[in-house]
Amino acid sequence: MGDLVLTTFNWVPEMPRGFVRDLRVRWALEEAGLPYRVASVPFDKRNADHFAHQPFGQVPWLTDGDISIFESGAILLHLGELSELLMPRDPRGRSRVQEWIFAALNSLEMAALPWGLFQFLGFPKDTPEWKFMDGFLNDSRLQRLESVLAKGEWLAGEFSIADILMADVLRLVDRFDGLTNYPACRTYMERATQRPAFRKALADQMAHFAAAD
Amino acid sequence: MGDLVLTTFNWVPEMPRGFVRDLRVRWALEEAGLPYRVASVPFDKRNADHFAHQPFGQVPWLTDGDISIFESGAILLHLGELSELLMPRDPRGRSRVQEWIFAALNSLEMAALPWGLFQFLGFPKDTPEWKFMDGFLNDSRLQRLESVLAKGEWLAGEFSIADILMADVLRLVDRFDGLTNYPACRTYMERATQRPAFRKALADQMAHFAAAD
Repeated sequence: MGDLVLTTFNWVPEMPRGFVRDLRVRWALEEAGLPYRVASVPFDKRNADHFAHQPFGQVPWLTDGDISIFESGAILLHLGELSELLMPRDPRGRSRVQEWIFAALNSLEMAALPWGLFQFLGFPKDTPEWKFMDGFLNDSRLQRLESVLAKGEWLAGEFSIADILMADVLRLVDRFDGLTNYPACRTYMERATQRPAFRKALADQMAHFAAAD
Repeated sequence: MGDLVLTTFNWVPEMPRGFVRDLRVRWALEEAGLPYRVASVPFDKRNADHFAHQPFGQVPWLTDGDISIFESGAILLHLGELSELLMPRDPRGRSRVQEWIFAALNSLEMAALPWGLFQFLGFPKDTPEWKFMDGFLNDSRLQRLESVLAKGEWLAGEFSIADILMADVLRLVDRFDGLTNYPACRTYMERATQRPAFRKALADQMAHFAAAD
């Protein structure tokens, strides 16, 4: 492992604060107790170096020595390889964590992010488009996840990077009051976000953006 | 490695044929030359054993001996660990493949899947909802991916599981004529789907579902 440097925007508007994805990386680093520093790139003007590190012009990315990694899922998988506190070493445990990482991002977030953006943008709720998005999230995803989360404290045995990703996706749903009918999902999200590593990561992200106001 | 068994539905309607995600797993297995067999579960009636393997009631899942894995991304990552033809062994090469796996699923497919479903469902194109979905896919994703794919044959050096996932996501976009303005994306998708392993995987999936008609 080399020096770990997490890069995020220098500033973002009020609305995404607390939800910028560097939060997931901060949270994992704090859970593992890995030393790191935070670097910034301009939110307003994304240059060629930014696109070289993150081809879609987003954040975050992480450098570990001379390796640079984008996508919060890939970064957390990399950190999982560095610390058993984030992902177990045995093949069965690893594969359980990995399937839930992809479930959080490709099954849950794929439905939750457009659903959240539809609400943020104020789209009306009497349209076929809204009914489709709402059904995609609720009927195909949250109802099933509720059964899973009713059975255990964490997704894959001990707390892991899968829980960081899943809990962060559920935070977005909860922000728009989407967990009301899912007590196990809501309790799980609260259990995850009461962890000291999450509290510190969230406070650090808020302070980082506030410092640039 | 134990015996590899890929489970998919026994039958699906016409529309998703050629796009059911067991295709990605078949494709990777064919690329790697790994022996496997295909098992089926009922499309019409999903039982408790199905949900035990795939909590969202979807397909595919893969068993490797006594380990069972769901989510096509997690399955391909597992297969990548089994064959250097799917993912290189060196840390830098691995991390490049992994970031593009997540980019395919969490950056591209997150925009492409709802966009494709909106078209499949025949939602009108003069609405703010459509403009949002179309902008999300085009402005935030495909325009950037076009620059990346204009630079090289594959996403992460040699052909890898990242290309299987990205090319399959682009197939869905292309199905609804969404690659017209992106010649590099289109050429890349065609290059990937001309590979013998893809042709065999697609023919096998179509034959599998046709056999149950």
